[in-house]
Amino acid sequence: MRGGGHRRRLSDEFGSDSDAEENGGGNPTRTMKCVSCREEYASSDAGTCRECYEEASETEEELKREIEDLKAKVAFLRFSSWTPHQHQRPTPPCFTDVVLVASDDDSPVPVPAHKAVLVASPVPVPPSRRGDAMLKTVGSLDLMQKKKSPASRSPVFRAMLENEMEESLSGTVKISDVSYDALRAFVNFLYTAEACLDEQMGCDLLVLAEKYQVKHLKTYCEKFMVSKLNWENALVSFAFAHQHNAKNLADSALSLIMDNMDKLRKREEYAELVDKDPRLVVEIFEAYLSKQVNTAAHKDSLSKP
Amino acid sequence: MRGGGHRRRLSDEFGSDSDAEENGGGNPTRTMKCVSCREEYASSDAGTCRECYEEASETEEELKREIEDLKAKVAFLRFSSWTPHQHQRPTPPCFTDVVLVASDDDSPVPVPAHKAVLVASPVPVPPSRRGDAMLKTVGSLDLMQKKKSPASRSPVFRAMLENEMEESLSGTVKISDVSYDALRAFVNFLYTAEACLDEQMGCDLLVLAEKYQVKHLKTYCEKFMVSKLNWENALVSFAFAHQHNAKNLADSALSLIMDNMDKLRKREEYAELVDKDPRLVVEIFEAYLSKQVNTAAHKDSLSKP
Repeated sequence: MRGGGHRRRLSDEFGSDSDAEENGGGNPTRTMKCVSCREEYASSDAGTCRECYEEASETEEELKREIEDLKAKVAFLRFSSWTPHQHQRPTPPCFTDVVLVASDDDSPVPVPAHKAVLVASPVPVPPSRRGDAMLKTVGSLDLMQKKKSPASRSPVFRAMLENEMEESLSGTVKISDVSYDALRAFVNFLYTAEACLDEQMGCDLLVLAEKYQVKHLKTYCEKFMVSKLNWENALVSFAFAHQHNAKNLADSALSLIMDNMDKLRKREEYAELVDKDPRLVVEIFEAYLSKQVNTAAHKDSLSKP
Repeated sequence: MRGGGHRRRLSDEFGSDSDAEENGGGNPTRTMKCVSCREEYASSDAGTCRECYEEASETEEELKREIEDLKAKVAFLRFSSWTPHQHQRPTPPCFTDVVLVASDDDSPVPVPAHKAVLVASPVPVPPSRRGDAMLKTVGSLDLMQKKKSPASRSPVFRAMLENEMEESLSGTVKISDVSYDALRAFVNFLYTAEACLDEQMGCDLLVLAEKYQVKHLKTYCEKFMVSKLNWENALVSFAFAHQHNAKNLADSALSLIMDNMDKLRKREEYAELVDKDPRLVVEIFEAYLSKQVNTAAHKDSLSKP
């Protein structure tokens, strides 16, 4: 909440260093009406002054306007990977120049796409927005690039399609270990920045995002999977996250595991993990040990005079 | 601002129907400390209760998170119409399949682009998000389309390029009455949803947006031009807005003109407008007359007992 926009000094009749005393001093049953909820409250429950309330309301309106603007921008920029047609089923997009196929399928259905979308470069951020005073006066695009070259939507597709590799020459990108549905959702994300996830699709797309280095999709899937974490799936998620370099998911799963160390060894997946990847189990115990040491040190420092 | 989240009834000792009395009743010099700006205030300047302050702060945090998410989405979806390269000048994008040229130039520089981007369809809004309970249980894409077919990024480019018209066959779209810079900015907007505007570029892009039916760009330019309106450019803007069906700009300009009717006839552009398009001048006077009649009627209703 913004504040500090005004500087009004009132008589300090009841002032002291303690908030509680200041807000509640004197007569705590004196009531005021809150300008927001219209309920009455005692001075001990006071929140803001009227001016800060008005500033906060303005800020909220501004933020809401910004959200509307951004939503309109997103709606303009997303584009349907399948062309909708009135009165008939959607048809594949026009002017496609590449197809993706799930190579494990016996009779794979190709997913058509545009090379331009698969390799799209994000727009470089102008120096002034990066708060880079040095570059502000120069501002030429090539100088910006020297500072930091923005990654492609998928650097892997870019390498495949911009060079004379098999995929570029044949116009077909084969993708292994993926279902048609996941492939379709993956391509769709590259056009829309959205995906309809369940736990399986979250995993499938995270794997593809990691493989094709689509950073935004990886973050998107990790967020979803973190929101679905529970004690039942924590160990599996931890192992999965490790396998696919999903640091946020690994950290969240680890934290959940450490909160339930007493139950850890009873879980079936635990025995499996010891068997398959004991180093991960070691990591859990090491993290737990560090946490215990830190907690003990903290308690110790508090108990000292 | 959200409120109403809590229902606390305090003793109504000082309660009355008037806010001023309630907030300022009793001892107006009693001070509290605002939890936002940390300044002291008297009960007559009270804003919110503490609970509403906390709710509002949470709301603000949520809105800021939403803005961050939307910004990340925009950054992912925008794509550079020119490919940046490390240590060298940006190069034209890869896999382009059409060029646009400013046909009035003697030696026009072509602006390469992707047909897919020029004709891109927005993603249809799923029925549930449109709050359409009828369709919620059906949810198939073709049914959605029957409800409302979303417009293309530019329906005009779509008609040109998807059918066997000259532009589609030659791969060249000639655009008249436009400078190379404006054409480049126009194409860039289709990739990024952003443009660097000054007053001239605002006009140029609004004209192109109207001609090629790029609705989002038209709104973007109108917003900018409304922000630049002043008495000096009001008449010219009003005429321009009329010519290009820019209703928001026309309304804002008209409103500014009506606030300065006493100075209207002294302006040079006024005589020009009477000469060139007298119907527009009639519109101004008619609007002014309506406003006067309404104001008089309002005053009249207030003066009656």
